[in-house]
Amino acid sequence: MNLSQEIRQQAEEAKRASRVLALTPSQQKNEVLKGMAEALRKEEKAILEANQRDMESSRRGGKSGAFLDRLALNPKRIEAMARGLEEIAALPDPVGEITEMQVRPNGLRVGRMRVPLGVVGVIYESRPSVTADAVGLCLKAGNAVILRGGKEALSTNSLLARILGQEAAHHGLPHGCIAFVENPDRAAVLELVRLSDLVDLLIPRGGPELIRFVVENSAIPVVRHEKGLCHIYVDREADLAMAREIAFNAKVERPGVCNAMETLLLHEEIAPALLPSLADLLQQAGVELRGCPQARAICPSMKEASEDDWDTEYLDLILSVRVVKGLEEALEHIANHGSGLAEAIVTESYSNAMRFLQAVDSSCVFVNASTRFADGGEFGMGAEIGISTQKLHARGPMGVRELTCTKFIILGRGQVRISAR
Amino acid sequence: MNLSQEIRQQAEEAKRASRVLALTPSQQKNEVLKGMAEALRKEEKAILEANQRDMESSRRGGKSGAFLDRLALNPKRIEAMARGLEEIAALPDPVGEITEMQVRPNGLRVGRMRVPLGVVGVIYESRPSVTADAVGLCLKAGNAVILRGGKEALSTNSLLARILGQEAAHHGLPHGCIAFVENPDRAAVLELVRLSDLVDLLIPRGGPELIRFVVENSAIPVVRHEKGLCHIYVDREADLAMAREIAFNAKVERPGVCNAMETLLLHEEIAPALLPSLADLLQQAGVELRGCPQARAICPSMKEASEDDWDTEYLDLILSVRVVKGLEEALEHIANHGSGLAEAIVTESYSNAMRFLQAVDSSCVFVNASTRFADGGEFGMGAEIGISTQKLHARGPMGVRELTCTKFIILGRGQVRISAR
Repeated sequence: MNLSQEIRQQAEEAKRASRVLALTPSQQKNEVLKGMAEALRKEEKAILEANQRDMESSRRGGKSGAFLDRLALNPKRIEAMARGLEEIAALPDPVGEITEMQVRPNGLRVGRMRVPLGVVGVIYESRPSVTADAVGLCLKAGNAVILRGGKEALSTNSLLARILGQEAAHHGLPHGCIAFVENPDRAAVLELVRLSDLVDLLIPRGGPELIRFVVENSAIPVVRHEKGLCHIYVDREADLAMAREIAFNAKVERPGVCNAMETLLLHEEIAPALLPSLADLLQQAGVELRGCPQARAICPSMKEASEDDWDTEYLDLILSVRVVKGLEEALEHIANHGSGLAEAIVTESYSNAMRFLQAVDSSCVFVNASTRFADGGEFGMGAEIGISTQKLHARGPMGVRELTCTKFIILGRGQVRISAR
Repeated sequence: MNLSQEIRQQAEEAKRASRVLALTPSQQKNEVLKGMAEALRKEEKAILEANQRDMESSRRGGKSGAFLDRLALNPKRIEAMARGLEEIAALPDPVGEITEMQVRPNGLRVGRMRVPLGVVGVIYESRPSVTADAVGLCLKAGNAVILRGGKEALSTNSLLARILGQEAAHHGLPHGCIAFVENPDRAAVLELVRLSDLVDLLIPRGGPELIRFVVENSAIPVVRHEKGLCHIYVDREADLAMAREIAFNAKVERPGVCNAMETLLLHEEIAPALLPSLADLLQQAGVELRGCPQARAICPSMKEASEDDWDTEYLDLILSVRVVKGLEEALEHIANHGSGLAEAIVTESYSNAMRFLQAVDSSCVFVNASTRFADGGEFGMGAEIGISTQKLHARGPMGVRELTCTKFIILGRGQVRISAR
């Protein structure tokens, strides 16, 4: 069997399994998830050994420290995976929920029933925890899942998928509900993303290069987040202490993640009062500041921001700072440079808060809170499979419900349609 | 300015207009829609003249009668367009609706706000009424719209778009909110479907060839319906008179539309009692029946169905009939041959009705009613811009709400995030 046949066969099995999973009761799905958590704990030693093999070959391959950190497992991280599965088990099951049921004038009852998508393909890179998250979220939503992790994590992911799959089988879930693509070549991804008759959704999780490859080659709908270039606008009517705390948190607390702030916009009338102390605070935390001329006039220790800075997701301890005439100029800047992930305003003005909430076209729009909260867990959705910056189907953090869709159900008592012509 | 620049400029204007439209109050949008309805009535004569020009050149081009019927306008059809716009004006405005607002343990208030998609491209063929429907639905949802109608309807559509656009401008809507691509070449469609930085959604409405062209060339998400191969399964526990009426209605009332029945599945124990009288009824209405061997044994006047028949959307007075052992075989047949648009079961069995509702993976699943009701108007959604057979974003009839998305809004009082590492 060649690669193409092999992957098609996995997808066909996943499709068949998905029809059974769609009708599997919550209780059974939850028992599987809890069983999986226990199995990960029991197999800790074997998982760490497999991970050690991946770590060694990545070290030999000269991978960076950040890469190795993403790849590395330890007992605490394995416990976090297990607990993640238990948390997913504890979430409400969206499948089967019937909403918006109404009676039409002719007596037909029309409503929407929430149902699984079918088969979800998850294509990711070096983080092994994605394996457990993706399996947990997809199964809870009643979907079969096809996993394709990065080749550097092959030993770890392959073992994780085997452990989780055994547990699924042990609890009576159908063969094929968790498929793992072992072949480490890009060609395998290419085969997978073309199976539009079998796979319902692709979720690429990783760097821009991976996402572009999937989007450009896929015949299947893709839900993705491109980048997170988040802005915070401090309005004239801001509480200065609150603005300082929020800006500091959004930049410094975890600079390498997508919901960290990359550009700070300051109302020109508040900038002289806020910027010196805030810049001190940030610079003491090791943040490099790059400002517009007006910002540098207030705070000469800043570097000069280039035009490129306004479009750069640093994912690092760097912040671009721009002084604006007011809310409208801030909105214009965000419309031109934002990535649509998360933006925040700090203000005590009711009108400006409302205007910002309505006008900013991002997946998460904040008033008086740090953009760092743009996260499925923080929103009470449980685990997330990613944050979508696209508008169709799912926007913002994606949890279990975002891995389902609805169908219309119509209950009659023999009605037929007579149309006016 | 070449074609590419011209279409990009239209899309850029539409994008700018969409930012204003997103914040336009319902009242203003509704006044525009009502003004448009009046304008269509006032310009009836000019519209009929433009349509006459299109009709004549299509007649000279040797177009079929069905084609000419889709293209033709008359006072009644213009009035229907106008009334459609008034009905859209009367619908509730989904934009700005805030739902699922919850307070998180840290006091953050997290909810979802419904917002427009931005710019919607509608690519259609010869039906001029799509122009008014698309403009009405898109504007109501706060979207700018780019229209690309079939070249045979160019005079009609171009005039309709001009009338509607003038009315939009008259009521203060921004320039660019209704764009019309005048260039009749395919190349213009190709330019449009590549503008993924400016256009948020494409809706192709027309034959399979048009849909395939858009899907294959688009860099923009496409919402579409492929075909409607609808099944009705008559269960052993069916009310025979009801089954007869529903089957007759679903096949005969309007055979050329996507929600008409194409295949009838009959439980083997009910087929002998139902089929002879139902076949008579259908044949008297001019329906050609194509049956499986078991069906033909009961009703020898049927032709023999080939394997291809089970996968054919006739859109005509033809019906394929298959006798099955029971519900499970019917479900299997539907899973293998259905298009996912609409399927119905006729049964008095509670268990079988529930099993059918849950197991059938279609956009509309009916119990004891005709598939002909699969329609936005019949579901109380007002006008529809199409019926989606895909699972992501919108499934089933698409009305105003399906032309919007949501964003998260988060209201704080200075919260910052401290993550456990």
